[in-house]
Amino acid sequence: MNRLTHLDENGAARMVDVSAKPETERTATAEGRIRMRTDALEAMLAGDVPKGDALATARIAGIMAAKKTGELIPLCHPLGLESVTIEFERESDAIRVTAKAGLIGRTGVEMEAMTAASVALLTLYDMGKALDRGMVIEGVRLLAKSGGKSGEWRAAD
Amino acid sequence: MNRLTHLDENGAARMVDVSAKPETERTATAEGRIRMRTDALEAMLAGDVPKGDALATARIAGIMAAKKTGELIPLCHPLGLESVTIEFERESDAIRVTAKAGLIGRTGVEMEAMTAASVALLTLYDMGKALDRGMVIEGVRLLAKSGGKSGEWRAAD
Amino acid sequence: MNRLTHLDENGAARMVDVSAKPETERTATAEGRIRMRTDALEAMLAGDVPKGDALATARIAGIMAAKKTGELIPLCHPLGLESVTIEFERESDAIRVTAKAGLIGRTGVEMEAMTAASVALLTLYDMGKALDRGMVIEGVRLLAKSGGKSGEWRAAD
Amino acid sequence: MNRLTHLDENGAARMVDVSAKPETERTATAEGRIRMRTDALEAMLAGDVPKGDALATARIAGIMAAKKTGELIPLCHPLGLESVTIEFERESDAIRVTAKAGLIGRTGVEMEAMTAASVALLTLYDMGKALDRGMVIEGVRLLAKSGGKSGEWRAAD
Amino acid sequence: MNRLTHLDENGAARMVDVSAKPETERTATAEGRIRMRTDALEAMLAGDVPKGDALATARIAGIMAAKKTGELIPLCHPLGLESVTIEFERESDAIRVTAKAGLIGRTGVEMEAMTAASVALLTLYDMGKALDRGMVIEGVRLLAKSGGKSGEWRAAD
Amino acid sequence: MNRLTHLDENGAARMVDVSAKPETERTATAEGRIRMRTDALEAMLAGDVPKGDALATARIAGIMAAKKTGELIPLCHPLGLESVTIEFERESDAIRVTAKAGLIGRTGVEMEAMTAASVALLTLYDMGKALDRGMVIEGVRLLAKSGGKSGEWRAAD
Repeated sequence: MNRLTHLDENGAARMVDVSAKPETERTATAEGRIRMRTDALEAMLAGDVPKGDALATARIAGIMAAKKTGELIPLCHPLGLESVTIEFERESDAIRVTAKAGLIGRTGVEMEAMTAASVALLTLYDMGKALDRGMVIEGVRLLAKSGGKSGEWRAAD
Repeated sequence: MNRLTHLDENGAARMVDVSAKPETERTATAEGRIRMRTDALEAMLAGDVPKGDALATARIAGIMAAKKTGELIPLCHPLGLESVTIEFERESDAIRVTAKAGLIGRTGVEMEAMTAASVALLTLYDMGKALDRGMVIEGVRLLAKSGGKSGEWRAAD
Repeated sequence: MNRLTHLDENGAARMVDVSAKPETERTATAEGRIRMRTDALEAMLAGDVPKGDALATARIAGIMAAKKTGELIPLCHPLGLESVTIEFERESDAIRVTAKAGLIGRTGVEMEAMTAASVALLTLYDMGKALDRGMVIEGVRLLAKSGGKSGEWRAAD
Repeated sequence: MNRLTHLDENGAARMVDVSAKPETERTATAEGRIRMRTDALEAMLAGDVPKGDALATARIAGIMAAKKTGELIPLCHPLGLESVTIEFERESDAIRVTAKAGLIGRTGVEMEAMTAASVALLTLYDMGKALDRGMVIEGVRLLAKSGGKSGEWRAAD
Repeated sequence: MNRLTHLDENGAARMVDVSAKPETERTATAEGRIRMRTDALEAMLAGDVPKGDALATARIAGIMAAKKTGELIPLCHPLGLESVTIEFERESDAIRVTAKAGLIGRTGVEMEAMTAASVALLTLYDMGKALDRGMVIEGVRLLAKSGGKSGEWRAAD
Repeated sequence: MNRLTHLDENGAARMVDVSAKPETERTATAEGRIRMRTDALEAMLAGDVPKGDALATARIAGIMAAKKTGELIPLCHPLGLESVTIEFERESDAIRVTAKAGLIGRTGVEMEAMTAASVALLTLYDMGKALDRGMVIEGVRLLAKSGGKSGEWRAAD
């Protein structure tokens, strides 16, 4: 007990067998934020610079990364994702990213949502780093998931 | 001024031309941490489970992700990375990841170090999520960089 | 109405949720041609040069690209393609490519067929460009599709 | 003579040795267009739908595809691209894409520009196909290139 | 008869249509070994060097390669693998790798197991080549498979 | 001494820093063979089936895999390969593959040649497995390398 399921009894990494699990509808939502100076925040969200492309670029990056999750995270199963959305919200000193992923399958999509959020945030860092190299990515976490044997789960707060 | 360099004067995304920059030695160091409950931390770092494979898996994931940076971050230049290292350090309620990247080239490797740290952290999340779905990735940021026109830079604290 | 389905009500890109669609048999056929000078056409199709490898290379490139469609086209669903074929036909001043793709799934394979045809044509351009840089790719379009809610469709002419 | 340089004397495909070529500044520009019905054109470019995301998605797809050229086109050399831009222009019944790529290196970037234009066009097809499945990609060709032994080249018209 | 199923009646490569096959449980096991000098074998498996990371790196490489099989082997179907394990065993002058793959699907996973074993062996070569460039990979073969129309199969010896 | 250079003093995997090495011309040649029954060998090389596509497919697979080496082998540096060739030779009960790779760079291309040979062999296995599942890949090894600090090297026999 309290064993990491991705390691076998000898501690060797493995891609766990999920073939005996039933196909159920699975969803997962993850979030994270990138804190930055006001001038970077303004440049990223408003002003002369069209609002569109900075966030649009990060959104596409997050969606494409969700599809690459099984290629990035060594022990993740490759999945045929059936939906991905990325939303941005301005906070006082940060941009908050929320990523949702879903499919009907034998294993959950938590890592797909977490990866989408992380890569969208990294892309925002890349877009803004010439203005503020000190930006910090914070609070990347799972907000909720549904489906599978463990069913619904929500983060405590 | 205060323009995002990845967007042109009309706000359209582009991969900025770096061909006129000289090749210089470039390094970058990024860090981040993943906070988790004590039982997950113990399972990941000690006990019956060989210490090796949990961290080894995350380390390999981070190194391989550094090489994929140009594929993940839309406007990053593809780079021929010449070194990558990933280190883990136990903190009281977290595992801290430090990633370093380097090469001789026309553009910096900040995104490579940031991406390596982020994917190593996501992999630790994946390894531990069966024990603690509430783990949180915090403080992913650039610690230092060298090389290029802007030269040395260090995070404030 | 007349909305692009890949954009939500605010115009943000998304990977549309297809999880509620039934799995049906889907096929799609796309075509395109690359016009070139006679000497390039002869070199590509006949003469001393074995016919095999020029077209064989383009065929493999098209098949492999079909499998990468979800990685290339940002809002495409990743699909487990179950068949791909590529055929070449000589026209008077061009090589015509026809690509077919198929699977049983929740979403169509039009983009897989279009991508296979496009990359096969780009590969022919690459093979012949030392002889004729002025080659032009023309008429890349969907010829037919079947399956899904909209069922059969055929191009007008 | 009039041999395809990507095939050896026996007609076998190969990645041609470029190591003896000097590193020079290389650029290439390619174009193409996608013809569509007026309603699809309007939906893609104007109206309630923010102009940003439809074209922004295709632009990002084209830039990312340029970086994948060596992975898509079997005999292309993998290149460290140093700049990529994609521009869109409305024509009466089409959207025209122009892609430029550049680097300092031993081999040209024609295929990178051609691939960027093609994948941007395929992405526009994907965005609009629910409105007009009959869209056609036309006139994908090299407009100009510079650098290397053969130097400047421009398409005839 | 005795035709290669990946080539059509004209000898053209194709990705064979499997959409009419039923989904059954499929498994495959492959093995191979890498022979090396005693000093390289000792360095890879024991001594000061922690045992963990040399084999752990090869194991992760093999698992990740299994997921890339459809991207590496041109006519393989892309599959949603549901399990992969890699085991190492010391022989007198070699390290033996055994790779197992499984899923419920329309086509077999023999190539996934063969690819996982091959890439794990290549990674061991890479880890040890500074000590012994003369290492040789031997006996990469399918040991057993189950599922599909042809059912169980085992290697002769 | 006798340390694996890919592991640091604590045994942790790393991508070794090569930035201080000079750029020199590097080449490497690797070989391997796949043994098979006579009927499979005949089908692959002759008879009604055009000779072209079976070997052409394996050749393209090997060339494309050489370009992916840094993505497959965790601690390999990503390299801008400048040449790759693959040759096939019929032996009495086998097909022999020879792969050569080259570039001007800071690190060697041994793994690129080894990977190209291995993936070409795996592709031949895939092409022939419906005829002979018992094919065995043998003798994958480095034949020769040149360039870098260690200079010329040739396999003993």
